[in-house]
Amino acid sequence: METTIKVLKKIKPKNPVLIEGLPGIGSVGRVTVQYLIDELKAEKFAELYSPYFLPFVSIQKSMIQILKNEFYYWENPNKDGEDLIILSGDCQCGDAGTLGHYEIVEKILDLCENLGVKKIFTLGGFGTGEIEEAKNIEILGAVNDKKLINKYKKFGVDFESSTERIQYIVGASGLLIGLGKKREIEGVCLMGETTGFPILTDPRSAEKLLKVIVNIFNLDIDLSKIDEKSKEMEVFLKKLEVIQEKAMKKLMPREEGKEKLRYIG
Amino acid sequence: METTIKVLKKIKPKNPVLIEGLPGIGSVGRVTVQYLIDELKAEKFAELYSPYFLPFVSIQKSMIQILKNEFYYWENPNKDGEDLIILSGDCQCGDAGTLGHYEIVEKILDLCENLGVKKIFTLGGFGTGEIEEAKNIEILGAVNDKKLINKYKKFGVDFESSTERIQYIVGASGLLIGLGKKREIEGVCLMGETTGFPILTDPRSAEKLLKVIVNIFNLDIDLSKIDEKSKEMEVFLKKLEVIQEKAMKKLMPREEGKEKLRYIG
Amino acid sequence: METTIKVLKKIKPKNPVLIEGLPGIGSVGRVTVQYLIDELKAEKFAELYSPYFLPFVSIQKSMIQILKNEFYYWENPNKDGEDLIILSGDCQCGDAGTLGHYEIVEKILDLCENLGVKKIFTLGGFGTGEIEEAKNIEILGAVNDKKLINKYKKFGVDFESSTERIQYIVGASGLLIGLGKKREIEGVCLMGETTGFPILTDPRSAEKLLKVIVNIFNLDIDLSKIDEKSKEMEVFLKKLEVIQEKAMKKLMPREEGKEKLRYIG
Amino acid sequence: METTIKVLKKIKPKNPVLIEGLPGIGSVGRVTVQYLIDELKAEKFAELYSPYFLPFVSIQKSMIQILKNEFYYWENPNKDGEDLIILSGDCQCGDAGTLGHYEIVEKILDLCENLGVKKIFTLGGFGTGEIEEAKNIEILGAVNDKKLINKYKKFGVDFESSTERIQYIVGASGLLIGLGKKREIEGVCLMGETTGFPILTDPRSAEKLLKVIVNIFNLDIDLSKIDEKSKEMEVFLKKLEVIQEKAMKKLMPREEGKEKLRYIG
Repeated sequence: METTIKVLKKIKPKNPVLIEGLPGIGSVGRVTVQYLIDELKAEKFAELYSPYFLPFVSIQKSMIQILKNEFYYWENPNKDGEDLIILSGDCQCGDAGTLGHYEIVEKILDLCENLGVKKIFTLGGFGTGEIEEAKNIEILGAVNDKKLINKYKKFGVDFESSTERIQYIVGASGLLIGLGKKREIEGVCLMGETTGFPILTDPRSAEKLLKVIVNIFNLDIDLSKIDEKSKEMEVFLKKLEVIQEKAMKKLMPREEGKEKLRYIG
Repeated sequence: METTIKVLKKIKPKNPVLIEGLPGIGSVGRVTVQYLIDELKAEKFAELYSPYFLPFVSIQKSMIQILKNEFYYWENPNKDGEDLIILSGDCQCGDAGTLGHYEIVEKILDLCENLGVKKIFTLGGFGTGEIEEAKNIEILGAVNDKKLINKYKKFGVDFESSTERIQYIVGASGLLIGLGKKREIEGVCLMGETTGFPILTDPRSAEKLLKVIVNIFNLDIDLSKIDEKSKEMEVFLKKLEVIQEKAMKKLMPREEGKEKLRYIG
Repeated sequence: METTIKVLKKIKPKNPVLIEGLPGIGSVGRVTVQYLIDELKAEKFAELYSPYFLPFVSIQKSMIQILKNEFYYWENPNKDGEDLIILSGDCQCGDAGTLGHYEIVEKILDLCENLGVKKIFTLGGFGTGEIEEAKNIEILGAVNDKKLINKYKKFGVDFESSTERIQYIVGASGLLIGLGKKREIEGVCLMGETTGFPILTDPRSAEKLLKVIVNIFNLDIDLSKIDEKSKEMEVFLKKLEVIQEKAMKKLMPREEGKEKLRYIG
Repeated sequence: METTIKVLKKIKPKNPVLIEGLPGIGSVGRVTVQYLIDELKAEKFAELYSPYFLPFVSIQKSMIQILKNEFYYWENPNKDGEDLIILSGDCQCGDAGTLGHYEIVEKILDLCENLGVKKIFTLGGFGTGEIEEAKNIEILGAVNDKKLINKYKKFGVDFESSTERIQYIVGASGLLIGLGKKREIEGVCLMGETTGFPILTDPRSAEKLLKVIVNIFNLDIDLSKIDEKSKEMEVFLKKLEVIQEKAMKKLMPREEGKEKLRYIG
């Protein structure tokens, strides 16, 4: 088994943009894209499976499901507008090595190229370690092409702070943009400030991020349900994270064996 | 070396069903399938070897054996009945990464497809952390197709509890059913409640599980020897588990080195 | 780079037998084969390199050497006798995963098949945790074919104890014999009792093991230098083991990070 | 994605020599090659990307960059002189396994062969654990061909000490020379003594190393700016190392889970 993307329905998007929101800090990206998917009634058209995901299945209502990432499609009613490809999912690479992270991102970029995607937005949280008042939450940005800074600064994205405060981005949100560059895909990473405490969904940060996205793409979305939706998701996401941690511990026991590596032979 | 299944004898089963009982919690699945194999006098027809198994050999009566999984065949004397393919073995994937888990399960599913298997039952234990009285042991179930719930509920399988209590299944029992779905193979995971204390074979839980299997497949099996058999196996399985843990510690030393990764160069 | 065996000189051995003595407990196998190589003036004819060996080089007399295993050839002057292929080396698989162990052993078995090897002896130590008097040191044996027990019992190999006392063999000594069976190569693992304290070369155990080998193959070897040789080797082997441990720590830092796996994104 | 070298500009070097200075102890090699690149105004002509690098991107001035190694070219104005290929970069292999280390080095050697490189110098630090006075810092050497010792001893390289004091070299500096030998490429590893304290750039050691390189290749370089340059780089390199450690902790959580590997199933 390789990492594979199963296309459920062929689509022919116009001016498509990928918006990624896989699980991460404060679930900020995950909550944001879920809200977009629900409110835009985006349609699932592809699924990604990988042997680099943790080897376990989840159970919901007695039904067994393997872990996957999902691609949704929203057709912009405005003929000149940009269609959205929205990437959500249960998890990122769960393997201890580095290879899986790259393989999964390359497969996503392959799909992007096939669909004609020229721009990627990756959404996430930036852990500040502090509890900010909602009104003070900033959306930090980083790009793979200088000209994008001026283009998106006007939407309230703070590109200055990111230089000082963010030194690295781990996982798909960074790699999609870094490796996308090699394929001449423009990339913007938007990160909502959040406390970064473990297993805490941050609807305030997601709301701020959502507003930026809504403005950039000129979307017609009712933001009033973000609180309610966010609480619903928190239960689900908490559960998922707890499960993954438990499973990881089981798979990678780190017993305090002080014995050394030796062989009979 | 790849994960390979060596077919020792060609079989042409009719309406075959796979029943998997690899080592796991309380050895519930392992004990159950061993009892089935012995009582049904099922015949071994294939062996699975994998470089993802721990790199060690076991010694029994001075004889060296590499680790393997084994497939047994039972021909149903009833012409309209279902033949059984029973999967047992020494171990599951022993590698620290995720790939081996998927590779081994895909190889098993390849064999299933070749043999025309349309249904898989995976057997295991569900650790409750408590010591239940034998009469209170429940068999929990999870499926990959909703219609299976009604079909097997009548055999005393509790599908309601699984939704609340079981959130994930690690290893082959879950993956076989989750990945089997993609090949249109129906899957049912049956889990006997057990304390889940390490290295403890639970014959009571295995007996309950066995009764469900006997009823589902309408098997003619004497259940009176389960106690005796279970004790025999306990010694063997305990030994195997202790061995694997020791070996794992030797292979994966986690010394408290606080030195950092650095190079001369 | 794959695991590769570079043949330095083509040989056409008659009735060849492989004798393996890679580093392991008490360096018993390693010391024994080194003594054989030196005393028989066996000639190196092949080297094995592997990307599964630790990624470091050793320095001796300002000269940099990558890690390798080495094959030596001894032509039996007796025309009906068995030629010896002796396998020694710096290390075994150093990777954290399981794959390398299998790959290296399969490459060795490929060479064996090419050379017409029908029998393999693997030599090692068995850690008792106790300091035995020299006269009490036993050589324990395990085989991959029952008929071999009777054949070698008469040379003083204890096959009864191994059944009770040895439950598993980790690494090449076990896998060569376990996987050799699948290629119809007879295999005998001989283990000299030794304390098993870390980094301690045990010349007494090696001497006993050497005597068994000398008798089995009817070799004309002066055993009086084993003490002296063993001391020389101890310095070299100690150094090698210390080096490998240090290197491993550097490669696999296990910092006490209690942070969880999370992504910005 | 494989480890790949992207050639940005075709070059046809005459008598080319590779000088490697990837990150390592005291950043001695890294600082030395950076100074060479800057002072010689060497031109970047190729980049190496690898899925064995840590799966994260760095951010500088709001710009996202994936990790890479870089090759620079300096054409010797002296027609009979040796052209230099200088290898620098952000990191070495970041994967927990051994394979990546070998793969990356083999790719570098492939490029060397294509360019006609017959000689490799790898530069690094040798951690003494002590703070030496600048005037006492020695440059230790190790080679892959005995005749090189006499050739380079006269430049003040200490080959005697290396035999006693250095037993191994971990990472690219050692492997390039060890594996280069198999391709008949001469190799010299030069190591400047340094304290080896973590995250400490050692300009004094780099200066000594630089002087040796300048003499060997008869370069016309102003060494007076090494202090200033070194301080600039220290900030950058410290940041990079801190980032990589943080990222590694995030990727490889080592929780004190005492649970054992077990499966439901």
